[in-house]
Amino acid sequence: MQPIDIARDTTKVVQNYLTYQAVKIIIDQLTETNPGEAIWLRQYSSGGKLQDAEKYLDGLMSEIRGKPLIMRVLTVRDDLAKQVMEHLPGMVCVSVQEANLIHRRRLLERLTQSPSDAFDIDSESDADESSDENT
Amino acid sequence: MQPIDIARDTTKVVQNYLTYQAVKIIIDQLTETNPGEAIWLRQYSSGGKLQDAEKYLDGLMSEIRGKPLIMRVLTVRDDLAKQVMEHLPGMVCVSVQEANLIHRRRLLERLTQSPSDAFDIDSESDADESSDENT
Repeated sequence: MQPIDIARDTTKVVQNYLTYQAVKIIIDQLTETNPGEAIWLRQYSSGGKLQDAEKYLDGLMSEIRGKPLIMRVLTVRDDLAKQVMEHLPGMVCVSVQEANLIHRRRLLERLTQSPSDAFDIDSESDADESSDENT
Repeated sequence: MQPIDIARDTTKVVQNYLTYQAVKIIIDQLTETNPGEAIWLRQYSSGGKLQDAEKYLDGLMSEIRGKPLIMRVLTVRDDLAKQVMEHLPGMVCVSVQEANLIHRRRLLERLTQSPSDAFDIDSESDADESSDENT
């Protein structure tokens, strides 16, 4: 798979995730203003329906109570996409580099741990055990 | 939740997804060069382990066969992050806008569908049923 295909698949993943976050924001807002609608939307959105955002929105359109909510979901996710995408490239690159640094350091520590260190740990643990037995 | 918190959570989602794609690339490469290792890595990476990339990498480090693969995963995902992030913001914003346009058009079609259209459809369906009954 080429990087551009991976970018396309990543787009789909991000779009699904931002739709999930948009619905979460709307449920929170409705909890304050219209608790009945909030409960309905929460129940409707359960059971992993939001894993495929476009299918979820198609389904919402078929519901009488869903029609007035659709435009709100579309507006919030469009707004979220613009705001999140402004920060995302920098955040992902830095986060991957930081995580890589931690894993590289841990790997280096393991590879440079001499067999004698491992022996010392074993002997200490043996010593602890025998002292435990003596008490 | 503020947009910056959503950006942080989205970063985690993207990082996990790019790690999954990096491992997939390496399994494909190993299938050509070292099929035994490819089978081992595929089996090790199964069962949803890649849903938490950093935990997956920590686990891989504890495996004798995993240690030589770690650096490769880190390098490939770092490279992928740089390439994918170059395109992602534009792709996500365009994809969300296009999908929104399709949903808005569908909603408009449904809302402007006159009751007489609905009646016509019903009558046609009744007519079909009665013609079925007649045959």
